[in-house]
Amino acid sequence: MTYTAAVSGATGYAGGEVLRLLCGHPEIEITTVTAHSSAGRRLGELQPHLHELADREVLETTAENLAGHDVVFLALPHGQSAAVAAQLPPETVVVDAGADHRLASAEAWQTFYGTEHAGTWPYGLPELIVDPSGRTQRDRLRGTARIAVPGCYPTGSLLALAPALAAGVVAPEDLVVVAASGTSGAGKSAKPHLLGAETMGSMSPYGVGGGHRHTPEIEQGLGWAGGTEVSLSFTPTLAPMPRGILTTATAVLRPGVDEARVREVYRAAYAHEPFVHLLPEGQWPATQSVLGSNHAALQLAVDPHAGRLVVTSVIDNLTKGTAGGAVQSVNLALGLPETTGLNAQGVAP
Amino acid sequence: MTYTAAVSGATGYAGGEVLRLLCGHPEIEITTVTAHSSAGRRLGELQPHLHELADREVLETTAENLAGHDVVFLALPHGQSAAVAAQLPPETVVVDAGADHRLASAEAWQTFYGTEHAGTWPYGLPELIVDPSGRTQRDRLRGTARIAVPGCYPTGSLLALAPALAAGVVAPEDLVVVAASGTSGAGKSAKPHLLGAETMGSMSPYGVGGGHRHTPEIEQGLGWAGGTEVSLSFTPTLAPMPRGILTTATAVLRPGVDEARVREVYRAAYAHEPFVHLLPEGQWPATQSVLGSNHAALQLAVDPHAGRLVVTSVIDNLTKGTAGGAVQSVNLALGLPETTGLNAQGVAP
Amino acid sequence: MTYTAAVSGATGYAGGEVLRLLCGHPEIEITTVTAHSSAGRRLGELQPHLHELADREVLETTAENLAGHDVVFLALPHGQSAAVAAQLPPETVVVDAGADHRLASAEAWQTFYGTEHAGTWPYGLPELIVDPSGRTQRDRLRGTARIAVPGCYPTGSLLALAPALAAGVVAPEDLVVVAASGTSGAGKSAKPHLLGAETMGSMSPYGVGGGHRHTPEIEQGLGWAGGTEVSLSFTPTLAPMPRGILTTATAVLRPGVDEARVREVYRAAYAHEPFVHLLPEGQWPATQSVLGSNHAALQLAVDPHAGRLVVTSVIDNLTKGTAGGAVQSVNLALGLPETTGLNAQGVAP
Amino acid sequence: MTYTAAVSGATGYAGGEVLRLLCGHPEIEITTVTAHSSAGRRLGELQPHLHELADREVLETTAENLAGHDVVFLALPHGQSAAVAAQLPPETVVVDAGADHRLASAEAWQTFYGTEHAGTWPYGLPELIVDPSGRTQRDRLRGTARIAVPGCYPTGSLLALAPALAAGVVAPEDLVVVAASGTSGAGKSAKPHLLGAETMGSMSPYGVGGGHRHTPEIEQGLGWAGGTEVSLSFTPTLAPMPRGILTTATAVLRPGVDEARVREVYRAAYAHEPFVHLLPEGQWPATQSVLGSNHAALQLAVDPHAGRLVVTSVIDNLTKGTAGGAVQSVNLALGLPETTGLNAQGVAP
Repeated sequence: MTYTAAVSGATGYAGGEVLRLLCGHPEIEITTVTAHSSAGRRLGELQPHLHELADREVLETTAENLAGHDVVFLALPHGQSAAVAAQLPPETVVVDAGADHRLASAEAWQTFYGTEHAGTWPYGLPELIVDPSGRTQRDRLRGTARIAVPGCYPTGSLLALAPALAAGVVAPEDLVVVAASGTSGAGKSAKPHLLGAETMGSMSPYGVGGGHRHTPEIEQGLGWAGGTEVSLSFTPTLAPMPRGILTTATAVLRPGVDEARVREVYRAAYAHEPFVHLLPEGQWPATQSVLGSNHAALQLAVDPHAGRLVVTSVIDNLTKGTAGGAVQSVNLALGLPETTGLNAQGVAP
Repeated sequence: MTYTAAVSGATGYAGGEVLRLLCGHPEIEITTVTAHSSAGRRLGELQPHLHELADREVLETTAENLAGHDVVFLALPHGQSAAVAAQLPPETVVVDAGADHRLASAEAWQTFYGTEHAGTWPYGLPELIVDPSGRTQRDRLRGTARIAVPGCYPTGSLLALAPALAAGVVAPEDLVVVAASGTSGAGKSAKPHLLGAETMGSMSPYGVGGGHRHTPEIEQGLGWAGGTEVSLSFTPTLAPMPRGILTTATAVLRPGVDEARVREVYRAAYAHEPFVHLLPEGQWPATQSVLGSNHAALQLAVDPHAGRLVVTSVIDNLTKGTAGGAVQSVNLALGLPETTGLNAQGVAP
Repeated sequence: MTYTAAVSGATGYAGGEVLRLLCGHPEIEITTVTAHSSAGRRLGELQPHLHELADREVLETTAENLAGHDVVFLALPHGQSAAVAAQLPPETVVVDAGADHRLASAEAWQTFYGTEHAGTWPYGLPELIVDPSGRTQRDRLRGTARIAVPGCYPTGSLLALAPALAAGVVAPEDLVVVAASGTSGAGKSAKPHLLGAETMGSMSPYGVGGGHRHTPEIEQGLGWAGGTEVSLSFTPTLAPMPRGILTTATAVLRPGVDEARVREVYRAAYAHEPFVHLLPEGQWPATQSVLGSNHAALQLAVDPHAGRLVVTSVIDNLTKGTAGGAVQSVNLALGLPETTGLNAQGVAP
Repeated sequence: MTYTAAVSGATGYAGGEVLRLLCGHPEIEITTVTAHSSAGRRLGELQPHLHELADREVLETTAENLAGHDVVFLALPHGQSAAVAAQLPPETVVVDAGADHRLASAEAWQTFYGTEHAGTWPYGLPELIVDPSGRTQRDRLRGTARIAVPGCYPTGSLLALAPALAAGVVAPEDLVVVAASGTSGAGKSAKPHLLGAETMGSMSPYGVGGGHRHTPEIEQGLGWAGGTEVSLSFTPTLAPMPRGILTTATAVLRPGVDEARVREVYRAAYAHEPFVHLLPEGQWPATQSVLGSNHAALQLAVDPHAGRLVVTSVIDNLTKGTAGGAVQSVNLALGLPETTGLNAQGVAP
């Protein structure tokens, strides 16, 4: 083991997935696990699937307990990470799995989250094309000491649409995204509408009409890719599964663009990516195929009748959509091979 | 009991749901049940949930066995209903739960189904607004002897968008619909990708890019409502639940239209409908709430940033989306109160 | 409508199911719905599947609000029904869907519930054989003004084993029952281990080792059937489904008893029951087949090698296991046909 | 990579899980994948979750294609492995994931499988206590060139009951096991009753009354543990989840045995096991906590009233229950550390 890590918010879903992945990471050792209301308990009671860590004591999330590690993962409620990060040395790699440091626009932050903007950290989606030349976010993550982990919906949406915008094969206006997420995306705090009896066998929308906080984050990333402002209608829905996001993203095709051209754009964009792939023609992605893995699978179709490109992507919201993306970015920050401790095989069926 | 009924395709999901509803219908008696490969068996082996009918013998689907009933339900594979219907007297109420008689355009039929067009029967969606004046399809179903039951996706999509198009508050171009269906929508024939181990905990798209056969049917109905051709991008997805469809439908708002105006349009359109309702503001529909019922619940939002109206609807694909719509239309055909034998209470949780 | 009803606990799962069934009951009118923390809200926000009742205001559960009805359903937390019932006139039919009045033994009550025993009311399982002569509980429910609704697990277990004990074909010692219940059985209060993300795709036991409160209730009922004390090992498990109970019940066969004999016993016991049935040989019950219905389906096998009878039963825990059983008993109490407003068709698939 | 492997039956669930685990095994390289009806296709079409292997061509399962590997995994239909194995050299490690070589008794084989007995290979459950002294099966697997992978139900049942029988704290007669399995246990061939629409939200028993083929296998292993014949009532049930087995196993306590004594027996039996653990008192196992892992978690309770010990265990039927157990046994056969390429962390929630 070369590096030590502390994981705060260790009893939630995001923190638990960070821990699960770190158990299989050959270069990072889990030294400290912290939480708030469960401090003092054994981790085995709270995350029974992490057998290897069952006897770890959960410490209180304090700057003191998080100090002295090479990497600190913050899986805290919105608005809490800036204060904690301020107490950690600048050379510590601090990874914010919350939203606080994702948005560059203080105004957008204020509108959607209602608190003071904490600042902006490098955005932890290495494969994101960040300008029309095709350069990726990867470059900005190498050697960084601060990482803003993307939201789970933005990960699925950005991977689905960025190549088309960067290549100019679709218009930046009137993007439409509808995404279905497993219920772990809503977190572990017990609310009646998230009960098993309410969610099994049922689908429902929420945050409709542009109100979801991930909307400005998706527009920000697609704006980078296309080099221009974009406008997006985004509808998230809750699906009867613990994990996974299926994203259906559509955009208006530029005149003269056919499916072969778009397919070539996506093939080129992701040809060398270890974790993002365009499926062979005729094969559609299923969330099950990426369960527990850091893999994102895509497929696209051009609808000449409607004049739209439709791109579908699947990710595991907790892995590629949160903890896997975080570990991948940490690998870049630490100068490790990007795929260390991660894999692209899903747990199926 | 006033009327006798025969149900063909009685061992499939659509036929089974027709039978379940008829068990509770005070004016229609199930006289004959027929199927093909299961002929000769007891219905209890094949539809164990229909306890009341367990001892019925399944007859072969022949014109002879279907003759002599007041109502004949055809739940047959595509392309088979016309030949059967031709052998039934013109006064028999014949209900085609398949696609054969839904499309008015022989060309669209040919393109999407690849066989000869069988003709067009009155479309069995009573609540569908069929011209910009707001008249509904109900008028065309009263006293009819032929009914084309709508597809399940079209039912959800048409109820979601027709009022907006009829009222002219959205543009007819660039409609985008993404819908998630329970797996019973794919029928009862055993295919590997429909196995429980493949579908539980997983979501996947299919028929992307305009290829799904329900696309021309949705465009046809919306064209009636708006009095003009519409253009639609439609993406169906398979959700891990046995029943239910959640439809997310979006359209470009006409300039100057706000949410209050749209809400008024929908309230007015469905104010007197027994089975279609706009939920109070702030309440989003869930498929569970309509399970096993003939109810469709809607909610809408206007997204001023994206310039789109988003309407979500939930139905049970087998009830309102197939068998319930069929029975409702039969009630109109027979001159019975439209709600006879149907109810709006879902089986939840 | 002949009778008026008040339903308390109307916002929970048991109360919701009582309301759903009463919506379809031709002789009982829902006059009043009450609850505690949700008093003052519209029922449509809390039970969105009960479309017909969406505009009803939820009143506070007080003796005053419950007074003046022909039937009062109490779906209250344990320990609260006796005080409420005491304030209702003796001629009002009071139905306790909680546990308070199920057990005849004050000592067993004290051991398993830890509070003072409220008394014993007629046990609302009409089909239960209550002495070795084969007499059923039905007789004790006709005309009663007080009904103790059985627990959901006891309903499944008692229907599975009572005929064998009454007929003496199995020994009363060493009964073993393992049952799997949908998560609605655990109620609607939000607890982390009942979240969708925790329960979907997962099975787990609880209350193992005789600690579950339904153990003395099952033993009580089987003791009536067999005319002697019985001893039971009962293990409940939580299954990834909203509704349904599958009960696997085994008992040691008396010497010389073969499957034909046992089958004859069960056929005879349930031959005239409208809601309880032994399936034909070779057909195994599935919970889906009774979803939302008042039907219980059974199948049995004799295992000569192990010397045990194995009986499996399926019910819907909220319908036959709670609200359906309650309505069935109320029908008997009011002198109505026992099946009024109930049906034996499940919502499948 | 030190060793080469061929995997036959690579397109099924068992073969797919072997491949998934081998992708993460540092000492075994997947050289060849074979199947029958899918020969000639790319593995990515058939096992889309195995991203790393997507471009592998599936070869026909022939002795020729399987020759020349250090390890050969056979995931073939019952009755086919003996003929294939006969054509492989004696030094090749041959792993039969089917049933053919599990039973020592040719008579039991004949009774339950109806074909000629293929012979008996070392049983691949390293943790199984195989005599009352407490010795485990591990010793018989070190250096072996033939491995019979246990059935999934037997793995869960044997781990649950063997310590108690070996220590003599329970009687060998009248064991009762009820187990709930995810539907992947039924395989990937498409049958109507295994469709998603049939299995989601539903539980059902099958093979009741001693007829399930895993009964003699469980009795065989428990007989080894206790040093005497045992008699078992075994009921398998199908649960609405893709993976996982929850086993509820009960046995009659010997006089004078209390819970502390039994707990000590299980603690001692599994104290040094890397993959089998008794949970702390008060914590019950859930199948989710072992999903995709080689971990088995157990909990027990003594029911003094019923005079029975109840032990519950959870495994992933495809991992510890099939492919994980196979890889673990192969590690022993090859002289590698037993845990190589395996882990005890489940994918939860």
